[in-house]
Amino acid sequence: MERTDKLRLMDHKSRQTKLQSVLQHNHLDGLLVTHLPNIRYVCGFTGSAGVLLVSQARCVLFTDGRYKEQARTEVKACRVLIDRKSPLIAVGNWLKTNAKKSGFKVLGIEGQHLTVAQRSQLRNVLRSDVQLREVSALVEQARMVKDEEEICRLRAAVLLGSSLFDVALKAIRPGVTETEVAAEIEYAARRAGAEGMSFETIIASGSRSALRHGRASVAEIPPNGFVVCDFGIILAGYCSDMTRTVHVGKPTGDAQKMYEAVREAQQAAIDTARSGVKAGDVDRAARHVLARRGLGRYFTHSTGHGVGLEIHEAPRIAIGQTEPLRVGMTITIEPGVYVPRVGGVRIEDMVLVTERGCEMLTPTSRELIII
Amino acid sequence: MERTDKLRLMDHKSRQTKLQSVLQHNHLDGLLVTHLPNIRYVCGFTGSAGVLLVSQARCVLFTDGRYKEQARTEVKACRVLIDRKSPLIAVGNWLKTNAKKSGFKVLGIEGQHLTVAQRSQLRNVLRSDVQLREVSALVEQARMVKDEEEICRLRAAVLLGSSLFDVALKAIRPGVTETEVAAEIEYAARRAGAEGMSFETIIASGSRSALRHGRASVAEIPPNGFVVCDFGIILAGYCSDMTRTVHVGKPTGDAQKMYEAVREAQQAAIDTARSGVKAGDVDRAARHVLARRGLGRYFTHSTGHGVGLEIHEAPRIAIGQTEPLRVGMTITIEPGVYVPRVGGVRIEDMVLVTERGCEMLTPTSRELIII
Repeated sequence: MERTDKLRLMDHKSRQTKLQSVLQHNHLDGLLVTHLPNIRYVCGFTGSAGVLLVSQARCVLFTDGRYKEQARTEVKACRVLIDRKSPLIAVGNWLKTNAKKSGFKVLGIEGQHLTVAQRSQLRNVLRSDVQLREVSALVEQARMVKDEEEICRLRAAVLLGSSLFDVALKAIRPGVTETEVAAEIEYAARRAGAEGMSFETIIASGSRSALRHGRASVAEIPPNGFVVCDFGIILAGYCSDMTRTVHVGKPTGDAQKMYEAVREAQQAAIDTARSGVKAGDVDRAARHVLARRGLGRYFTHSTGHGVGLEIHEAPRIAIGQTEPLRVGMTITIEPGVYVPRVGGVRIEDMVLVTERGCEMLTPTSRELIII
Repeated sequence: MERTDKLRLMDHKSRQTKLQSVLQHNHLDGLLVTHLPNIRYVCGFTGSAGVLLVSQARCVLFTDGRYKEQARTEVKACRVLIDRKSPLIAVGNWLKTNAKKSGFKVLGIEGQHLTVAQRSQLRNVLRSDVQLREVSALVEQARMVKDEEEICRLRAAVLLGSSLFDVALKAIRPGVTETEVAAEIEYAARRAGAEGMSFETIIASGSRSALRHGRASVAEIPPNGFVVCDFGIILAGYCSDMTRTVHVGKPTGDAQKMYEAVREAQQAAIDTARSGVKAGDVDRAARHVLARRGLGRYFTHSTGHGVGLEIHEAPRIAIGQTEPLRVGMTITIEPGVYVPRVGGVRIEDMVLVTERGCEMLTPTSRELIII
């Protein structure tokens, strides 16, 4: 990871400037960034303990002694304060001392990430000196649209991730357990330099393919049926995500129809995605195809989600989502059909939203592979 | 995991009864359990979306349609309610309807886990019908002392985990990257049936061994120096955790002394641990040995932590901790010495606290291995 970080530096300064204008717009004197992926996005710090204070005048990372060296290496575009106390107490104490002279009256907190106990802790330190205001997803909003460096890393992650499908194809055989297939994928990922998997590998075979979250179990792959393979890796901090469904043994006519319906639904969603289109419209395009094929009620999740530093980010590609897609968003498109106790199919790719459509990032064929 | 679950059932009913008496003691009409490992502990549910409501009269799990089948399989000792809405909204609506007739006035919330936004959401549904009271670690307190079934699973996890050290020994050679060693360990873990690693594998070689959290990097193992290997697996839901430090090439006298000092410190802590002793006293025993060897200032973390459903649980084995050890606690004992830019040593085992001492769970030798 370090290696890539050095090759291509993220422009944290401009991210901070953008965030500062968002603060002004929201009438906040400052924002306390406590969600680690948000901290990484805004200043580059990848440690597990830190709080970032962003205001018009400054950007300060608070962390503890364990991360002294790491913070100084990673964080170039803002000040780093090392404290013996936990970062939250440290920033509280700093604010208590500096609130008046720095004009801190209203401080935003990330309501979706700060716990009730952490807010109480902060409140106890700050007393009534500073008003804490719950704000929602300010940094996440900025993170939706990826910049050039991020897209470069996402491309690399997707390429490494998709290369693992060949590994899965070699491993999938009747009698082999799902965890053995997952083991081969994860081993190859590590050997290829991935920092880890971006979520628990899903290998769901036979009737288990009808589970939407069928993480690899000790079940053996049966001699006939679908195998859903859903996996992703983390490379230089960025996640990949893809799903392919293969068939072991000769598929029935119904199974083939099901696969083709999902494939068609995915293509319809891909054809719809472009800058300006609402996220919900992309979802509807996929749903419409499956409804027409009589499979609508078996498509029981949303069509996709943003991917970046986290495996699930904004925007959600789901029913009723009015968020317009924008150039530079990286999202998954992953309709699926799950017939309880029979089997399921999901096909998932990552795409990059462009002005006139979207660019397919995953290079892997979507033809049904029969093993 | 399922397989083991069936072999040996957890006694969720008695855990619920114990929790109910804790509620009474805390003058709570109910507790909203939202931390997933706590939910799993109290009722057996392993899904990723759920809220458990525990009161004197009842225990109800709220989850969504995705987990219908899974919840019915896993949750035997309490009622399951499936709702289209998110579990938090579902429990809020249920309370709104039933608060009066069920006598819900004061409801405990897990302050260390519930986010500020989740509390606001709940408050909006409940209005003033129910008072929400922030409580701390009620379930975690119960989880500190493991019951028979848990100890059985922890033993199995520790044995599988420790078998991976042999894999590490085969992989560690000068010129091999740290991630390659991690890849071999993780591959073997998966093939042996582990559900996953319990934390990011640490392989820290040469001067990187002086980092306390040196997760495996693309650095190559140098021809001479320590290699800290810290890894753990998850088996049937329970975590293992161990560290061994080996030396590549001939160690200097100083390196040997450093290793022996850490080993002696660890033994002193192990010799101190028994029922009734304060957690802080175990920490002090290790610290005392290292201070006597002139290495006190290089021991920059605490001596250990509880392990169970989570890799880091109560109690903390750290300076000033007054929590008395109790029979059935499973803790790590892991002193370390880290000389910046030179190298470090850590030795870590899991032990089970008994009446008269503690039982070593990790079977691996602690002799310095030279590669």
